[in-house]
Amino acid sequence: MVGIDDIELYLPKCFLPIETLAKHNDLDVLKLQKGLGLYNMSIPDADEDVVTMAAEALINLLKKNPDIEPNEIGRIYVGTESSIDGAKPIASYLTGLLNQYFQSINKPQMKACDSVDLVFACIGAIDAMENCLLWLSQHPTKKAIVVATDNAKYELASTGEYTQGAGAVAMLLAKNPRILEIPLTWGCSTSCAHDFFKPFRFQAKDGQHEKDSSHELAREIDLIHNDCPIFDGPKSNATYQDRMVQAYENFSELSSSDKPISSWDKVVFHQPYAFHGRRIFSPLFLEMLAKENKLDAFAASHGIGTAYQVEDDRAIRKSSAYQDFVTTKIEAGEKASMHVGNMYTGSIFLCLISTLFEAYKHDESLENARIGFIAYGSGAKSKVFEGILRPSWQERIMKLELDDYLLERKELSYEEYKYLHKGMLMNPVSDRQSQVFLNDMGFSDTNYGARNYQMATIQ
Amino acid sequence: MVGIDDIELYLPKCFLPIETLAKHNDLDVLKLQKGLGLYNMSIPDADEDVVTMAAEALINLLKKNPDIEPNEIGRIYVGTESSIDGAKPIASYLTGLLNQYFQSINKPQMKACDSVDLVFACIGAIDAMENCLLWLSQHPTKKAIVVATDNAKYELASTGEYTQGAGAVAMLLAKNPRILEIPLTWGCSTSCAHDFFKPFRFQAKDGQHEKDSSHELAREIDLIHNDCPIFDGPKSNATYQDRMVQAYENFSELSSSDKPISSWDKVVFHQPYAFHGRRIFSPLFLEMLAKENKLDAFAASHGIGTAYQVEDDRAIRKSSAYQDFVTTKIEAGEKASMHVGNMYTGSIFLCLISTLFEAYKHDESLENARIGFIAYGSGAKSKVFEGILRPSWQERIMKLELDDYLLERKELSYEEYKYLHKGMLMNPVSDRQSQVFLNDMGFSDTNYGARNYQMATIQ
Repeated sequence: MVGIDDIELYLPKCFLPIETLAKHNDLDVLKLQKGLGLYNMSIPDADEDVVTMAAEALINLLKKNPDIEPNEIGRIYVGTESSIDGAKPIASYLTGLLNQYFQSINKPQMKACDSVDLVFACIGAIDAMENCLLWLSQHPTKKAIVVATDNAKYELASTGEYTQGAGAVAMLLAKNPRILEIPLTWGCSTSCAHDFFKPFRFQAKDGQHEKDSSHELAREIDLIHNDCPIFDGPKSNATYQDRMVQAYENFSELSSSDKPISSWDKVVFHQPYAFHGRRIFSPLFLEMLAKENKLDAFAASHGIGTAYQVEDDRAIRKSSAYQDFVTTKIEAGEKASMHVGNMYTGSIFLCLISTLFEAYKHDESLENARIGFIAYGSGAKSKVFEGILRPSWQERIMKLELDDYLLERKELSYEEYKYLHKGMLMNPVSDRQSQVFLNDMGFSDTNYGARNYQMATIQ
Repeated sequence: MVGIDDIELYLPKCFLPIETLAKHNDLDVLKLQKGLGLYNMSIPDADEDVVTMAAEALINLLKKNPDIEPNEIGRIYVGTESSIDGAKPIASYLTGLLNQYFQSINKPQMKACDSVDLVFACIGAIDAMENCLLWLSQHPTKKAIVVATDNAKYELASTGEYTQGAGAVAMLLAKNPRILEIPLTWGCSTSCAHDFFKPFRFQAKDGQHEKDSSHELAREIDLIHNDCPIFDGPKSNATYQDRMVQAYENFSELSSSDKPISSWDKVVFHQPYAFHGRRIFSPLFLEMLAKENKLDAFAASHGIGTAYQVEDDRAIRKSSAYQDFVTTKIEAGEKASMHVGNMYTGSIFLCLISTLFEAYKHDESLENARIGFIAYGSGAKSKVFEGILRPSWQERIMKLELDDYLLERKELSYEEYKYLHKGMLMNPVSDRQSQVFLNDMGFSDTNYGARNYQMATIQ
C-alpha cells in the first residue's frame, strides 16, 4: 500500500482581491464571486518564482518530518508548466536546495536521488505522482517527493486574468502512508488539442532583412517565450469534459467496483477556477445515476434524455440531486481555490487539501473515506483514480496552517499588481521573510543567466 | 523481463561536413576529426522540427511492427530539451499523429494511452525509459513507446558549434523484448550544476520605461527563449565524470555482481561528441582494474597513483590496456555519432544502435552479451544501468537502414547551413519527402501559434 504520507503547500506573499480587479476592468464582481467562486488570487512577489515557491513548500514539508534521512529520499519529481529553463529542470534546483537544507541541520547530503520535471500542462504533477507511486511499490524502504509548482499568469485584461493564481505543493509519498492510500489503478485519456498552450513564438530580430539570390529568406528570428498562455476558454471546458468522461470510462473498466462514483465520499478536481468541477461533472453524474438505476426516473422528472447532451446541462446542474451531490462531495474542495486561484499543476492537490482541511475543521469523520480524483491537463489529458483516507489523516492535516497562509498575505493595490505582473518591480512589496532566495545570476559567457538560489539561515 | 523490443531512428534531411565548418571558421579539421571523432553533423531542413523528427522515427517504428494494435500502446513518453511549447508536451502531438497513422491503415484510435514529456537535459529519455520499464513490469500485456527528440544547436562560431547534431529515436518497450533485456537496477547521482542550460532570458521591451513615485521600476520585459545553450565545456566534462563515478558507485552497491564493469561486453554512453566516452571513462577503468586485482600492477607500470587523479588521465588513456578496452568495448558505439553529431536525449540510443549495427555488420556474436550504460544530463544527473542482449537482437537491428539514413542526406554548403541555423529559410533545401509535415499554424487570438501537424498520405 502506497500513497500520500504528508503534504505541504506554499502560497506566494501577495494577493489581489477579485473586487479590485473587477473594479479596474469594469467586470461584474458578483458574477465572478457567485458564478465562478473567485474571491482572491495569489500573486508572487518580486522576489518569488517557481523555484523559490517549490523550495518553500519542500522545506515546510521536511521541517514537519524531521526524522527523514537524506538517503531515504529516492526521488524528487516535479510537475510544472512554468519552467524557467528549456533544459535544466526545476527538480535539479530542488536537489541542490534540499542538500543545503540537510547541511544546515548537520545531516549528510542526499546520494542517488533521482530527479526530473514532467511537463503536460496542469497534469504533470499527477504524472509525477503516478510514476513515483509505481516506483515506491517496488522500492518500499524509500520515500519519494513530488512537487507541483506554477505561476498561473494570464495577459492583463484577458478572460483568463481573473482565474489567475500561483503556488506550490510538496508531497511525501511512502508505503503505509499516513494520509491517503492511492491504489495503482488509473484511468487515462489523451488527445492532441490546442485548448490552452504556451508556444514559443517567432519574432523578427530588429533590422534583419538579409536577401540572397539563391534562397527565399525570411528575417532572422528570436524565439519569444510568453509566460502567459494562448487559450480558448469554452474549448478548454469542452475538452476537459470529453477527456474526463473517457478517462472515467477507462477507470471504470479497470476498477473492481461496479459503481465507482457512488462509492466516492468526496470528488477532487483540477480546478482552473473554484467552481469548475461542479460545472463540468454532469455527464458523470448521469453515469452514476445510471449505475444506481435512478437515471430513467431522474431524466423523466427533469424532462431530459438519458444520454448526456450539452443542452440538458443547466437542468441537470439545477436539480436538487445534483446540488446535494455538490454540497456533500465537491464544495469543501472549492474553498481554498476561492482565495488562491488557479495553481496549474498544484490545483488538484490544493483541492485535496481544501477537502480535508474543511472536513477536519468541521470534525467530519472521513476514516476510510474514498476520494475520486479528476485530473486534467490541457493539450489534452485526463486521469481518473481514487484515494482511500487513512485513520491518521487528521493528525497530518491539522498541522497545515491553511488559514494562516491565506491571512499572512499582503493585499495588493491594482497598481502594485500591474507592476508585479509586468515584471517591473525590483523590490518585493511584502516584508514577509523568505526561506529561500535567488542570491545572484551569472553574467559571464559561460554562465549567463545561471540562477544561484540559497537557503536563508535556518532559525 | 522487460526491455527494448524494437528501435528506430530518424536523421534529418541535411548534413554539414566538419571540413566545411572548419574551413569557414578557420579550425584545425584534423584535430576535430582525429581528436573528437567529428566528421559530419546532422542538420534539420527548413521543414523539420523536433515534432516531425519524433513522428518520423515513431512511424518508422510502427511500420516495422504492423501487428501492434492501438490499444496495446499504454504509454508514449518523450524525452526532450528542445520543446516548442512551455505547457503542451511533444508527446501530445505524437498521440495525435499516431492516431492519424492508425486511421490511415484502418485501425481504431488509441484509447487510454498516457503521454508526457520528461525534461532533464540529455537524460530525459532515459528517465522516460526507466519509468516505462517499471510500468511495463506491472502491466505485462501492454507496450510502451519512448521517443527521444532534439535539435542540438549551438551559437554560430561557439565552441559547441562543431558538436552539433539532431534527430530522433523511437523505441518500443515490452516484456520478453526482442533486442535488449534491461534489469530494473539503476544507479543514479544528481547535483545542481550549471554546466549547460537554456535559461529564459529577460529582455526589455522596446521603449518601455515607466516610472512611478512609490516604486522602483525596471523596464517591462520579454522572456527570450534561446534555442542555443549557455555552456562551459570543461566544467561539463568534469561534472559528467563526477556524476558518472557516483552513479556507478550507486549502481555497484545495488548490483548483484561484484565486478560489474568487467562483465560488460560493450559500454554505451551519452555522447556529446563521438569520442567523449573514451575521454572520460578512466576513473571507472581504474575501478575495474581494482576489482580485478590488477590496479597496483597497472599503477606501478605507468607511474601513477591507485586513486584516480586528473593529472594521471593522459597516462591512463594512453596505456595499451585502456586502448584495448576502447577498441573492444567503446569504439563501435562511436561510429554513428561521428556522422550525426550530438542528438542530446537521443545520443545514448544512437550509441546503442551504432554498437549493435557494427556488431551485426561484422558478424560479431553478442548473444547474451552484457552492455553497460552511462547516461548523463547536464544540470546534472547520471544514471548507470545494464542491458542483456536477447538471442533475436540481430533480426531487429538488420532492419535498421543506418547506412542508408546517413547516405540519403543532402550535403549543405556553409551558406545553406548558416541560413538554416538562423531560421531564415522558408523552403527546404532537400527534396526528400516527409511522412509528417506542419500543415499550418493558428493566427487567431485563441489559437495563435497552434501547430497543426499532419501525416502525408501513406504509400
